[in-house]
Amino acid sequence: MTTQSERNNTRPLIGIDVGGTKIEAVLVTGDGTIEHAVRIPTRRGAAHVVEDVCAIARDVAGGRPRDVAAVGIGIPGQVDPGTGRIANLVNLDIETLELGRLVADELGIPVHVENDVNAAAVGAAHLLTGTDGTADASDGTVALLNFGTGLASGIIIDGVIRHGASGAAGEIGHIPIDPNRFDCPCGQRGCLETVCSGPGVARLWPAGGHDAMTDLIIHAAQGEPDACRALGIVRHAIGDVIQIIAQTLDPRLIILTGGMTRTGEPLLRVIREELETRESVCPFLAGLRFADRLRLAPANEPIGALGAALAVYARSR
Amino acid sequence: MTTQSERNNTRPLIGIDVGGTKIEAVLVTGDGTIEHAVRIPTRRGAAHVVEDVCAIARDVAGGRPRDVAAVGIGIPGQVDPGTGRIANLVNLDIETLELGRLVADELGIPVHVENDVNAAAVGAAHLLTGTDGTADASDGTVALLNFGTGLASGIIIDGVIRHGASGAAGEIGHIPIDPNRFDCPCGQRGCLETVCSGPGVARLWPAGGHDAMTDLIIHAAQGEPDACRALGIVRHAIGDVIQIIAQTLDPRLIILTGGMTRTGEPLLRVIREELETRESVCPFLAGLRFADRLRLAPANEPIGALGAALAVYARSR
Repeated sequence: MTTQSERNNTRPLIGIDVGGTKIEAVLVTGDGTIEHAVRIPTRRGAAHVVEDVCAIARDVAGGRPRDVAAVGIGIPGQVDPGTGRIANLVNLDIETLELGRLVADELGIPVHVENDVNAAAVGAAHLLTGTDGTADASDGTVALLNFGTGLASGIIIDGVIRHGASGAAGEIGHIPIDPNRFDCPCGQRGCLETVCSGPGVARLWPAGGHDAMTDLIIHAAQGEPDACRALGIVRHAIGDVIQIIAQTLDPRLIILTGGMTRTGEPLLRVIREELETRESVCPFLAGLRFADRLRLAPANEPIGALGAALAVYARSR
Repeated sequence: MTTQSERNNTRPLIGIDVGGTKIEAVLVTGDGTIEHAVRIPTRRGAAHVVEDVCAIARDVAGGRPRDVAAVGIGIPGQVDPGTGRIANLVNLDIETLELGRLVADELGIPVHVENDVNAAAVGAAHLLTGTDGTADASDGTVALLNFGTGLASGIIIDGVIRHGASGAAGEIGHIPIDPNRFDCPCGQRGCLETVCSGPGVARLWPAGGHDAMTDLIIHAAQGEPDACRALGIVRHAIGDVIQIIAQTLDPRLIILTGGMTRTGEPLLRVIREELETRESVCPFLAGLRFADRLRLAPANEPIGALGAALAVYARSR
């Protein structure tokens, strides 16, 4: 953890988002402005990941990484922010890796490692500050929903990234909702992730190609029965996800991101319709106005890398 | 809100829990010890509630309420802890009431009003401190699940009562899970509360009398098919509630209370079996060990009144 005096440091930060297909890095000033951004393809394996993270850090810092105050890394899998250790990163062929220590040793500057969804929540909350009238990103509760390869939530409460007692806070993808729905690789049946994720939508709408959600919405809008049925399943599951996160945490902002949401506004309209349908029968729900709290994460901003940088100074529990 | 200097005040506090059938009051020392407790039946209507709250406060303070530092009141319905105003307390025939202001004017001491489930969470967390190895009640996340007339959760994070952006944090009772299940008076269908509540169990097991849950468990243990079927629905819904709250917040303690739980240990065994069944197919879930975090709220302690007193000094967001 960093101290308040370090926080007052005005030196820039590096933020790095390690994804399944690309690694993205940004150089960020003390006030959260992105000065420079770099992107490289991901290579699998622990040695490659450490090497590539160090290389992109040097690159984004113009060859002078020691001029920055610290490096923040966001990465999938099980992350221990206290030690910088990661585990079970199946997509990158990594069982365990002392990512934080190895990168810090190599670059000679402090490194903070955070789960990628939590980092994205920090970055998106920073960029969306003010869109709900709140002037301070660290005020109140913000939940980011990542509809990606899987489904998970990043939860920021009063500026503190909440990991929970065992690091499982926000692991809503494996809440089983409908026991008659699909088998989940986790062993349960009907997990929200089996529908609310890129692969989930692709399974329901295999004709949709690499952006099944967009294709599905187009065909449903044309009244095709199969598409309407499939979209009905997806929008119902998204409605469940939103009610679960919103009625548990009552966040002021619910931010949607991940590959499944790249459709953008048309998907947001589908979700709003689903919420309106639910609200039409329930004054309690209507009064909570969850639709007003929904935001798409900025589509062309590196929220993961930005958030990884800002997470260096965010308190994390 | 009270200040740190007030918190250091060693004068006792009064805590009052206003329930549908009884009002309970405790006199609590600065270190959270209950010195004296009083109980009276509840009378409906705003004037009666104010009158009875003031009377029980005087009574529990030995006729000298001005010797105490403050009064904390826990009460159902919509509560604004900032103003002490309550609304929509249908069970007590109250539409709106400036409860905090009226009681403070009458007694001449500060009054803090809190939602009853949140107050119970504070009280139970205080009494259960140490049962999971945590020495400080204000460390980490504690969720109390109240299976009463309705279903709701009280959420305490690092000692702060979390209300959410619109006061709806913990309102999990009206998350609809199975659209083929029961109509809910809220207008939705399949709300968790339609099963996980005293009235919900009583509807599934009408032969069970005033403690349907206990009777249901006894008959299911004897292998009666109808009881096994009804208990299957209840334990499945409780499992859903626990996964929703635990995978969203990852609390260190999940405390069960409310009339439906008065069965005690036999119910806890049923819930543990349900979680074991779920864990048997899912290593991810098994690794989270939610069953180890479950606690019954202390059965013979006035957790609502105690928590209302302690909530006077708890930060509330």
